[in-house]
Amino acid sequence: MFWNEKIECMSREELEELQLKKLQKTVKLAFNKIPYYNKKYTDCGVFPEDIETLKDIEKLPFITKDDLRESYPYGLFAVDMKDIKEIHSSSGTTGKPVVSGYTRKDLDTWAETTARGLGMMGVGENDIIQNTHGYGLFTGGFGVHYGSHKVGATIVPISTGQTRRQIEIMKDFGVTCLIATPSYGIHLAEVAEDDGINPKDMNLKAIGFGAEMWSEEIRQKLENLFGAPAYNIYGLTELMGPGVGVECSAQKGLHIAEDIYYPEIIDSTTGKTLGENQKGELVLTNLEREGMPIIRFRTKDLTSLTYEPCECGRTSARMSRITGRADDMIKVKGVAIFPSQIEKALLKVGDVEPHYLIIVTRPGTLDQIEVKVEASKNLFFDGVKEMVDIQSKIAKSIENETGIRVKVTLVEPKSLPRYEGKAKRVIDKRNLH
Amino acid sequence: MFWNEKIECMSREELEELQLKKLQKTVKLAFNKIPYYNKKYTDCGVFPEDIETLKDIEKLPFITKDDLRESYPYGLFAVDMKDIKEIHSSSGTTGKPVVSGYTRKDLDTWAETTARGLGMMGVGENDIIQNTHGYGLFTGGFGVHYGSHKVGATIVPISTGQTRRQIEIMKDFGVTCLIATPSYGIHLAEVAEDDGINPKDMNLKAIGFGAEMWSEEIRQKLENLFGAPAYNIYGLTELMGPGVGVECSAQKGLHIAEDIYYPEIIDSTTGKTLGENQKGELVLTNLEREGMPIIRFRTKDLTSLTYEPCECGRTSARMSRITGRADDMIKVKGVAIFPSQIEKALLKVGDVEPHYLIIVTRPGTLDQIEVKVEASKNLFFDGVKEMVDIQSKIAKSIENETGIRVKVTLVEPKSLPRYEGKAKRVIDKRNLH
Ligand SMILES: [Zn+2]
Ligand SMILES: [Zn+2]
Repeated sequence: MFWNEKIECMSREELEELQLKKLQKTVKLAFNKIPYYNKKYTDCGVFPEDIETLKDIEKLPFITKDDLRESYPYGLFAVDMKDIKEIHSSSGTTGKPVVSGYTRKDLDTWAETTARGLGMMGVGENDIIQNTHGYGLFTGGFGVHYGSHKVGATIVPISTGQTRRQIEIMKDFGVTCLIATPSYGIHLAEVAEDDGINPKDMNLKAIGFGAEMWSEEIRQKLENLFGAPAYNIYGLTELMGPGVGVECSAQKGLHIAEDIYYPEIIDSTTGKTLGENQKGELVLTNLEREGMPIIRFRTKDLTSLTYEPCECGRTSARMSRITGRADDMIKVKGVAIFPSQIEKALLKVGDVEPHYLIIVTRPGTLDQIEVKVEASKNLFFDGVKEMVDIQSKIAKSIENETGIRVKVTLVEPKSLPRYEGKAKRVIDKRNLH
Repeated sequence: MFWNEKIECMSREELEELQLKKLQKTVKLAFNKIPYYNKKYTDCGVFPEDIETLKDIEKLPFITKDDLRESYPYGLFAVDMKDIKEIHSSSGTTGKPVVSGYTRKDLDTWAETTARGLGMMGVGENDIIQNTHGYGLFTGGFGVHYGSHKVGATIVPISTGQTRRQIEIMKDFGVTCLIATPSYGIHLAEVAEDDGINPKDMNLKAIGFGAEMWSEEIRQKLENLFGAPAYNIYGLTELMGPGVGVECSAQKGLHIAEDIYYPEIIDSTTGKTLGENQKGELVLTNLEREGMPIIRFRTKDLTSLTYEPCECGRTSARMSRITGRADDMIKVKGVAIFPSQIEKALLKVGDVEPHYLIIVTRPGTLDQIEVKVEASKNLFFDGVKEMVDIQSKIAKSIENETGIRVKVTLVEPKSLPRYEGKAKRVIDKRNLH
């Protein structure tokens, strides 16, 4: 199901021509209308005329969260405030939050990207979408909301919380598509099961998940619980929101809305551009934004790109699942570890739930990692010996995956915190940041 | 500032002609497309042809929350599900919630009503609106959101919570219009003051408040704190949402969008229609709704109507501030709660008697609910830890049911008053009447 077949299946040649035209326009807009860019580009000795090919984008300096913070709140707006119709924001890690501004046309462009995503998931005007993402300055909720309006589906903007009510509504309203973080989706299904409701009886057609790290095992679990395919939706508030990339029915990477976002992969240490299929940091550029064009934004998300034609017929670049953060990784004993690796390892062993917490400490001079994992309900009543066995199996599996020996502690089912937004998987007590 | 001067200042004669035409169309739609109405009207021996004047509306039976519950979820929809683009819902008193469905045109009509309201408040495309109402199935957030898009203001959809972040954003973003419940507005100002920020320095131009009971003293307090005029916004999810009535600069009652809602006042005991300026229960009819036309809905809200010309130039009927309820609903933090919901929640937990008392207070600026429940005899002798456990279980159950956090206190068996007639379950100490 294509929402915009003409664009989604355009030949690469045409697409790249379109991208170049839009990139030139965007760089000109930024240079002419935004003093912050003007100064930055002038300082680097690079000017709009220097963008003669797509490759020339590499001449432009990166934009980071720090740039967004420095220009807080409106320093990157390219239009008068009266033309900004909506503002979103992501809470900064430190200091000021990051602001994202939208003209009327930008809101429509954003909706176009999520509309295409819903199309990839097979969701259209006959579907009822339960959107459990939070609405607010966070863009998760609104991105899908606007996309749903565009494709003409029925949106149930239930937002987060009240899990039992969510289940009741999912059943009663005949919901066909669930939008959730993977951990909340699994939580919903588990609570339903506790209440004697088989999540498969909801007859979901598709699940769209995002806003947190995931692994194929987590996707599997989500799909098995609901008996429905689950598709990843990716995006960032800074660039606009969810819809940058969405998985198609092939589930082999996320199709990037390439006429709207220009993707690059760089080596996050050297800043050098990497080639197809090489893993590195994703860098994104708004190609179609009036209110706040962001050019070469360092997402810190680690992924790779492929330009291979997809079996679905779409011609756009696909990014692989985000496997880590250029900054969120845990570095222990010189080794970089990602929560997703630990997750993968522990789910391989089984008898545990995909709810875990990684605690990093430095009791003396050496870093230690403890992984708390929820035992599955059955296991928990099976006695101490079984518990100890499983713990050491998991520790071995994690060591296999990461090269690091960790301490594993099984805890009671449902004893770890649940998150309705992005799950917090790592507690770093070393004070390294 | 008029958003739609032609309609807002139309002569009463023209307006009533328009209302009659729309009423006839709506009754026909309901009768022909919705079996629930068809049966109800046929049972009463009343038919669309019987509506020859506006006064003839009195021949039609009322619709109550019970009708909405009986036809849950989609029994009052007049169109195919594929034409319903959004669903909202208010939590029901007992059992099933109440559903509200919107076609694309209905969403636009809803936006039109809140756009007019923003116009009354002097808010337009040069303004920045901080919307602290919750977004979700509750209509408070979205009503203003869509209206803001319509008038072309900048919406900051911050939703509820994170008070200090709200204050920072209000200051940094140059917000000119705050949308809040009266109690949350006052809370925001007081927290700002605690932090050494004078709320008057925010330079707000207007405050729109709603979703909870208020008094002129509360309005005064809000206006004095921010040094800005505060306008009441009224509406109900069942009818569409906020925007049914909004105060103009005269602050002498709320102008009803009379071409979109037809208002009546009835004696809530006899059901008889009352005259101008007589206080009674507000009854509302959708005059311009495709998806789910609601005809003669008993709001249970007590108010009166005046048709006197207003000094602002608008010709529409004005309703006075809601001074009470014809039932025992409590509105706290924008959420409607019924004693029956609390009863359901606490009986789910067990170990308690169905004797309880709900005490609503406003110790500072925020409403608090305490629920006193009689412990069962057995439990009462089981010790303190059990009591505390049960209390927190009940509190969790109530939060699940209502979305509101309450304080639960277990009291001795037989210690709460018994009633021979209708039990008095609610003690409202907020003094709002
Ligand atoms: Zn594909
Ligand atoms: Zn007036």
